[in-house]
Amino acid sequence: MKLEKPLVAAGLMFSLTVGAVFAASHADNPFAAGIKARQAQMQIQSFNLGILGAMAKGESEYDAEAAVLAATNLMHAVSIHQPQAWAPGSDNSAVEGTRALPAIWQNFPDVGAKSAELKAAAEEMKAVAGTGAEAVGAAMGRLGGACSACHKAYRAPAN
Amino acid sequence: MKLEKPLVAAGLMFSLTVGAVFAASHADNPFAAGIKARQAQMQIQSFNLGILGAMAKGESEYDAEAAVLAATNLMHAVSIHQPQAWAPGSDNSAVEGTRALPAIWQNFPDVGAKSAELKAAAEEMKAVAGTGAEAVGAAMGRLGGACSACHKAYRAPAN
Repeated sequence: MKLEKPLVAAGLMFSLTVGAVFAASHADNPFAAGIKARQAQMQIQSFNLGILGAMAKGESEYDAEAAVLAATNLMHAVSIHQPQAWAPGSDNSAVEGTRALPAIWQNFPDVGAKSAELKAAAEEMKAVAGTGAEAVGAAMGRLGGACSACHKAYRAPAN
Repeated sequence: MKLEKPLVAAGLMFSLTVGAVFAASHADNPFAAGIKARQAQMQIQSFNLGILGAMAKGESEYDAEAAVLAATNLMHAVSIHQPQAWAPGSDNSAVEGTRALPAIWQNFPDVGAKSAELKAAAEEMKAVAGTGAEAVGAAMGRLGGACSACHKAYRAPAN
């Protein structure tokens, strides 16, 4: 009984903070919360790659601190592993609002290998981000390749 | 000249992978990409808190491995620091699509303190997530409190 109060409090807090989000999305599509979570991960990757890419292209001034911060954020984002966001059946042939191809679920070893390459490329970026725009540009090449390889194989084209 | 080719390649890869996202959103609202990136961070926090909260409430069976994974994801998400996603002027009095109150930009020390408390609560969750549903429930109380404290002060109510 000692644990009942914290559990009730936790349940209440949870309801207040995230329960509404889940309830709303689950009414329409059982995969909606997962699809949002996996797209959110891509969004954070895209935003921080955008900061680094702009520096590499000279569209924004190189800033070592901001570059290291963006590379660190990227590293956190690629380290997030949310299998529950990739439930079988949550592909673009079955549900709305996703470009994830069914091939993902038929090629887990390859998806894992491509994900490992993305992580390795992000690690390389983090290692060199503080050393100048040229190094950022070189690391961006490998990162862009990792993004493209997975999108080409496993993401439907935008309409 | 040695560095030109990787930079051009990086520029091309960058354009292919994230350039389109930025171009599309920037046409409507200069803060759109940043707002999406900060909301993406909240989304990942919400999704992983949802997994932990369901176990704490007994709505899903406690699974030590899944709990540790969710807590690790949460730790990555709260460690992401994207100041460029919180540009001055990107509040709900000035732009659409955000509930971020102008008070955020007037209270940076307090926002930082609340953010540090969220990170400490996530660290506590990560430390105990593998030890049982009761411990997850107790840690969820502190996490829910950290979420609520910041939302109450700095987020407009949903309409």
